[in-house]
Amino acid sequence: MSERYDIAIIGTGPAGLEAAINAKIRNKNIVIFGNKDLSPKLTKAAKVNNYLGLYNLTGTELKNKFADHIKDMGVKIVNEKINNVYAMGDYFALMVNEKVYEAKAIILATGIEYTKPLIGEEEFLGKGVGYCATCDAPLYKGKTVVIVGYNKESVEEANYVSELSGKTYYIPMYKGEYNLNENVEIINNKPLKIVGDDVVTKMILDQGEIATDGIFMLRDSVSPSQLVPGIEIENGHIKVDRDMKTSIDGCYAAGDCTGTPYQYMKSAGEGLVAALSAVSYVDKLHVNK
Amino acid sequence: MSERYDIAIIGTGPAGLEAAINAKIRNKNIVIFGNKDLSPKLTKAAKVNNYLGLYNLTGTELKNKFADHIKDMGVKIVNEKINNVYAMGDYFALMVNEKVYEAKAIILATGIEYTKPLIGEEEFLGKGVGYCATCDAPLYKGKTVVIVGYNKESVEEANYVSELSGKTYYIPMYKGEYNLNENVEIINNKPLKIVGDDVVTKMILDQGEIATDGIFMLRDSVSPSQLVPGIEIENGHIKVDRDMKTSIDGCYAAGDCTGTPYQYMKSAGEGLVAALSAVSYVDKLHVNK
Ligand SMILES: Cc1cc2nc3c(=O)[nH]c(=O)nc-3n(C[C@H](O)[C@H](O)[C@H](O)COP(=O)(O)OP(=O)(O)OC[C@H]3O[C@@H](n4cnc5c(N)ncnc54)[C@H](O)[C@@H]3O)c2cc1C
Ligand SMILES: Cc1cc2nc3c(=O)[nH]c(=O)nc-3n(C[C@H](O)[C@H](O)[C@H](O)COP(=O)(O)OP(=O)(O)OC[C@H]3O[C@@H](n4cnc5c(N)ncnc54)[C@H](O)[C@@H]3O)c2cc1C
Repeated sequence: MSERYDIAIIGTGPAGLEAAINAKIRNKNIVIFGNKDLSPKLTKAAKVNNYLGLYNLTGTELKNKFADHIKDMGVKIVNEKINNVYAMGDYFALMVNEKVYEAKAIILATGIEYTKPLIGEEEFLGKGVGYCATCDAPLYKGKTVVIVGYNKESVEEANYVSELSGKTYYIPMYKGEYNLNENVEIINNKPLKIVGDDVVTKMILDQGEIATDGIFMLRDSVSPSQLVPGIEIENGHIKVDRDMKTSIDGCYAAGDCTGTPYQYMKSAGEGLVAALSAVSYVDKLHVNK
Repeated sequence: MSERYDIAIIGTGPAGLEAAINAKIRNKNIVIFGNKDLSPKLTKAAKVNNYLGLYNLTGTELKNKFADHIKDMGVKIVNEKINNVYAMGDYFALMVNEKVYEAKAIILATGIEYTKPLIGEEEFLGKGVGYCATCDAPLYKGKTVVIVGYNKESVEEANYVSELSGKTYYIPMYKGEYNLNENVEIINNKPLKIVGDDVVTKMILDQGEIATDGIFMLRDSVSPSQLVPGIEIENGHIKVDRDMKTSIDGCYAAGDCTGTPYQYMKSAGEGLVAALSAVSYVDKLHVNK
């Protein structure tokens, strides 16, 4: 049986990191999933002036301050993307491709996706469009798949799919090196539109189009309702109360994913509150046993 | 006639300061009332580990970071205590003894004040006396701690401390059942006085005394309803929604005064949200004119 953590935190922006250090200070056995580079939104900020105590830093400088802090406290990031979380009663199952992690409480700190969905993306979701290539790969044995990758981790998913599919196309939405299997074809065009009948038939690009059976959009974050089936959403954000509790017992949320304003300090503050609420929840679980 | 500010902020802890820098970044004409030393609770903290990006600072070091930040941004503190605030319709009147300040919106960031401190309590605050047992518990590994609990929630903190401390005493200031760990000793006497040299050495009771290294006073908070007559209070705190709006239009609140957890990062995060809500309120006032 896999180890059962007290608290699992999903996301390594300011919300997730502040949650992690506070849960750790309270002696909880924690695991935090995300990105060794913490958050793309941190590194992308040119200049940050509104994080009290750290004036006039670049986003990268601020990121480094955060990285030093968690390192000094022994918080280690598990560099994996959680595909799904299932509430199992007195614990949660967190799915990472073929692996499962278990935790008594969870904190969602996944940020928010600023990019708009492609035309046709929502219409064909579940009808050829998906957000987790490794999860759905078995559906595409011998078929054609298009992977739209927004980050380096997408490469792994593309490679995995290419071992089963007939043909895999990779459309990178970032600059860098793509460590792809030989049989994956890179397409350097901009995706514009997803079209089909009952199911997806092709992707329209700014130049040309690709006939395909499946399309995976691998963005930095998955929508919360996809990540945690059944969670209550309000105006496009995870609904929380003042203790950062969501509609699911033992499940807390913090940061951009809970609503505006989208800001570092708001995210960090909520991360702290979510952590202390989760700590108190876990403590009560023990008493009730 | 006195100048009418866009936003007046009352309090210079992390909540008020983060509100001030954000309102200023949004080009508002602001005034902030409080303490040139910012907050006594900042200077008194022995060591702060849970403010993301600034690890392992003393409270005074953290205070200096905050002071540098607001100085670099040209935020100047008015060193005065506001006695009363009156909602006048489309503006607020802030009374300082004989003076009156005016502002279109206000942010309450006054922290939490406790009634009737014990003799010696203020003198030894931060020198063995504290208000958050779970926060400071790590300082008392293997040592003796007295918890004065004013409510049922105090039991959780006492149990938590008892896992680290050498000896934990619990003095309940209320009637009820105490669901305490076996190793916590209940003392049914009235605390009268805290004594010590450089740091706390003992607590004097109506019958007898206890030699101790640390004392935590876990009181219910007192509401600032005197400051703003008519403001809605909930469980001893200013009632706010997720935008940090209080029951009075144009009046926002942030930090310890809005509820637990009493922590720097929670306060700062709320200060940011309160500021952006107040900015948006002021902008709408103009449009409606
Ligand atoms: C260019 C730019 C400039 C900005 N400037 C400022 C500024 O000056 N001041 C300010 O206050 N704010 C600024 N912001 C906003 C700020 O970046 C965000 O508000 C903040 O990063 C949100 O923090 P968060 O912790 O909620 O989420 P994020 O920082 O978005 O972090 C979320 C993390 O979770 C990870 N994640 C998501 N889903 C999963 C999953 N399923 N499994 C594992 N990991 C997952 C993501 O990869 C990411 O690392 C700026 C944003 C941008 C884009
Ligand atoms: C010894 C000690 C150690 C602590 N350690 C930690 C820690 O390690 N980590 C952590 O996160 N938290 C810690 N805390 C808690 C932390 O100090 C508070 O949560 C935080 O200071 C609250 O910020 P705030 O802005 O809401 O209010 P405060 O910091 O209390 O500031 C309120 C300010 O408003 C002023 N004010 C009040 N009324 C008026 C008025 N009418 N007119 C003008 N000014 C007014 C006050 O004088 C004060 O300056 C500690 C507290 C103490 C006492």
